[in-house]
Amino acid sequence: MHCIRCRAPANVEVRRRRSAFCAACYPGWFRNQVERAIGEEEMFTRQQRVLVAISGGKDSLALWHALLGLGYEADGMYIRLGIGGYSKRSQAASEMFAAKHGLTLHQVDLKAEYGYAVPQLRNQRRGKPCAACGTVKRYHFNKVAVDLGYDVVATGHNLDDEAATLFGNVIHWQTDFLGRQGPVLEATHPKLARKVKPLYRLAERDTAAYAIIERIEYILEECPMAVGAKSLQYKDALNRLEEAQPGLKQRFLAGFLNRGKEALGGADPVTIRECAECGQPTTAEVCAYCRMRERKRRQLEQKAAAGS
Amino acid sequence: MHCIRCRAPANVEVRRRRSAFCAACYPGWFRNQVERAIGEEEMFTRQQRVLVAISGGKDSLALWHALLGLGYEADGMYIRLGIGGYSKRSQAASEMFAAKHGLTLHQVDLKAEYGYAVPQLRNQRRGKPCAACGTVKRYHFNKVAVDLGYDVVATGHNLDDEAATLFGNVIHWQTDFLGRQGPVLEATHPKLARKVKPLYRLAERDTAAYAIIERIEYILEECPMAVGAKSLQYKDALNRLEEAQPGLKQRFLAGFLNRGKEALGGADPVTIRECAECGQPTTAEVCAYCRMRERKRRQLEQKAAAGS
Repeated sequence: MHCIRCRAPANVEVRRRRSAFCAACYPGWFRNQVERAIGEEEMFTRQQRVLVAISGGKDSLALWHALLGLGYEADGMYIRLGIGGYSKRSQAASEMFAAKHGLTLHQVDLKAEYGYAVPQLRNQRRGKPCAACGTVKRYHFNKVAVDLGYDVVATGHNLDDEAATLFGNVIHWQTDFLGRQGPVLEATHPKLARKVKPLYRLAERDTAAYAIIERIEYILEECPMAVGAKSLQYKDALNRLEEAQPGLKQRFLAGFLNRGKEALGGADPVTIRECAECGQPTTAEVCAYCRMRERKRRQLEQKAAAGS
Repeated sequence: MHCIRCRAPANVEVRRRRSAFCAACYPGWFRNQVERAIGEEEMFTRQQRVLVAISGGKDSLALWHALLGLGYEADGMYIRLGIGGYSKRSQAASEMFAAKHGLTLHQVDLKAEYGYAVPQLRNQRRGKPCAACGTVKRYHFNKVAVDLGYDVVATGHNLDDEAATLFGNVIHWQTDFLGRQGPVLEATHPKLARKVKPLYRLAERDTAAYAIIERIEYILEECPMAVGAKSLQYKDALNRLEEAQPGLKQRFLAGFLNRGKEALGGADPVTIRECAECGQPTTAEVCAYCRMRERKRRQLEQKAAAGS
């Protein structure tokens, strides 16, 4: 196999595109894909300030790296979720990347600022804190972006992530979620930041290849709390189908965005108002984050009462 | 594990329903499920004449057996597709079942009546005759049902079949097909038979268990032409997910029928007219079956010309 750009021996194959690249040409193709997603979906311009949601993994760091390479103004933000050694190592990778490239990395420390970490937020029924962790991350990324005047929050969600989320929503016919899924989430309230996913057309292995070739030191391990998560089952199912039908994931996601989403009629427009507790944007009286914190506070009180 | 009806040791587990049955109670539960599907979806009554599409496999024979057990008037119809030994063995199983129970089995012989069999209908691009075979079967089951005055055609499509078809249509966002998928297909033209799927809520292993307990001698092998078919890949993917999330297939299909289909707005109503060639109902000027036969005829002519 040879690089489709320079005919040198290829190092990276992109099977769904029937393409292959050498290590020298690949990063350019990758950044070009990012640039096209940003341009075609009108995600942001070079005059705007982007806040990249950083986890220390390959996707978020590859995204940050690519945005800088493309000349965008992008700062990072990391949330200390308090998930033991995993969090320590991902924080170190994020800080090292920022330091190496002389970048600004905002941080929120959950435990220090709010008194609890993600492992304490386990769902009673399912035993996984993944849903709560999502609420925590969405809340803080949005709040910091709005408070510090960023125009947009960019996340490292890739094709595999988006296809797996779509798959989960379709399997359960979550028509509300389906109507809202897409590479751009508009800000429909002054306290709501615009959310974009510049990697949504690049596969997980594409970003891994970019990170390796660009010598980005990311944390390889997956979050230990996510083991057995349904999203991983959906990724696995899609990966097997992709093996037999290269391009299936991309067609699944593109077909949804081009035809399925419209056929599903989109989500009903929701009214955003300010949370009665914290003032952050929400569709409810009290936001999901405040409700979660209240539940946690009551649990701790009951525990203390039972222990005394 | 014990039978939920009589507490005897269980022989069959229906995991998605958290149920188990002994061999004596199971057939009653199975037929009850068939009866409920027929009743709730208003498929047909005991005063109507049902034509069961018979393949010789477990699903169609289990369906025929269950309908008779429930007191319905059901004849069978078998199409000799000409797929070598597989067709010979499936024809024998179908004829044996009919003879054993003193039933009427109509037959259409493709090769004898039309000069070709399914293996000759390979798709040029994909090399599989599955799509053409579907056209052949739909055409003849419909024609025989209408010609002989049956009220409805019943097919043995089970939960796994329906979930896999739905999966394939969703993966490729075939919104037209999605709008038409369901357990009942109404007759929208005098020459179009009503189509129903009384097993659509029963899993493949449920019908296998029924066939074994009721000592139905069905053909075990799958069609050799279907090896590697995408529908089998989708079944495999769903089976793996079902392992991790029992009931997922049923929820996927039920969620579609209850919410997704409506959200997708249904298919645009199509106008049915009579084929200019054969007079059978179609949405086009010339029906898919006649177009296929015409292509086949031209191919054979070209071959003959090249050989002379």
